[in-house]
Amino acid sequence: MQDDRDPLEEVPVDSEPVFQGVLLDVRRDRVRLPDGKLTTREYIRHPGATVIVAVLPDGRLLFERQFRYPLGRAFLELPAGKIDAGEELLACAQRELREETGYEADTWTYLGVTHPCIGYSDERIEIFLARDLRHVGHALDDEEFLEVLTLGVDEAIEAVHDGRITDGKTIAALFLALRALKD
Amino acid sequence: MQDDRDPLEEVPVDSEPVFQGVLLDVRRDRVRLPDGKLTTREYIRHPGATVIVAVLPDGRLLFERQFRYPLGRAFLELPAGKIDAGEELLACAQRELREETGYEADTWTYLGVTHPCIGYSDERIEIFLARDLRHVGHALDDEEFLEVLTLGVDEAIEAVHDGRITDGKTIAALFLALRALKD
Repeated sequence: MQDDRDPLEEVPVDSEPVFQGVLLDVRRDRVRLPDGKLTTREYIRHPGATVIVAVLPDGRLLFERQFRYPLGRAFLELPAGKIDAGEELLACAQRELREETGYEADTWTYLGVTHPCIGYSDERIEIFLARDLRHVGHALDDEEFLEVLTLGVDEAIEAVHDGRITDGKTIAALFLALRALKD
Repeated sequence: MQDDRDPLEEVPVDSEPVFQGVLLDVRRDRVRLPDGKLTTREYIRHPGATVIVAVLPDGRLLFERQFRYPLGRAFLELPAGKIDAGEELLACAQRELREETGYEADTWTYLGVTHPCIGYSDERIEIFLARDLRHVGHALDDEEFLEVLTLGVDEAIEAVHDGRITDGKTIAALFLALRALKD
């Protein structure tokens, strides 16, 4: 009988919630390592998110400036947001783009997924390209404060290289979108 | 008198630890929003990390396959690891490269920083390019299981596009290294 298990696999032994807050759901598991020893893994359970590379008719990209409390400053980032319970990925991307920037898009392309924090979170961020945008007005969530701005594609690439853009999901989404944007 | 504060700024009111585990340090703060209302922010405090784009003499890049328990599978990723207390960034990058892959490098270039998880962690990952590699042997930490492999630069870019590489720090580090690698 063949053993198809990954030789690196860690097997859960038991699992318990250690903190459930308004935002974070933290678990601690006991796991069996490949050498048979037991160890502890602590991690965040996250519902997943979408991020959107939204291209205006003139080719510029929609960005946001948003204050990120854990790091104590505002970041230049692409529109993004968490998936609601039961929500389809595309519906989430469409909702977040509309709520955060006031735009709807006629053409949507799925580009792939990135995992921002594989050491201590199960978060996945699904990446979409949105084209043929129309401005329909804002509908920000309560407690959501942000500024919408635009960057040209080359300017956005430059901003990654010069450190104005350091947000991981934004860099990953730009990487995956570059081929489509450069066509 | 001019007010230099960012209009998006959120101001801490108080802060408390809500979970301190063997890996995760979780805090909950009360903060004042730009409109004066109070809300809650929960986040991970992280010591920071380094990630290394290490180029072999034949131009291929060192990668690892490592099991990531929160997502229940192995990931293809660049060598990386947490900064020890008091450790210099370059020393951390050099230590992680040696411990995880068995290589030392004569030429190191700092490429920049990425923030993987700005919504709920203060983690920063400092990105280094390592060239002129010499194999000196392995010294893995206890409980560290991984496989070392190599990819060509174009193969690594393809792997981001086809979804074999989804790890955020790896994508960000490749993005920042591409100009140097393509020279």
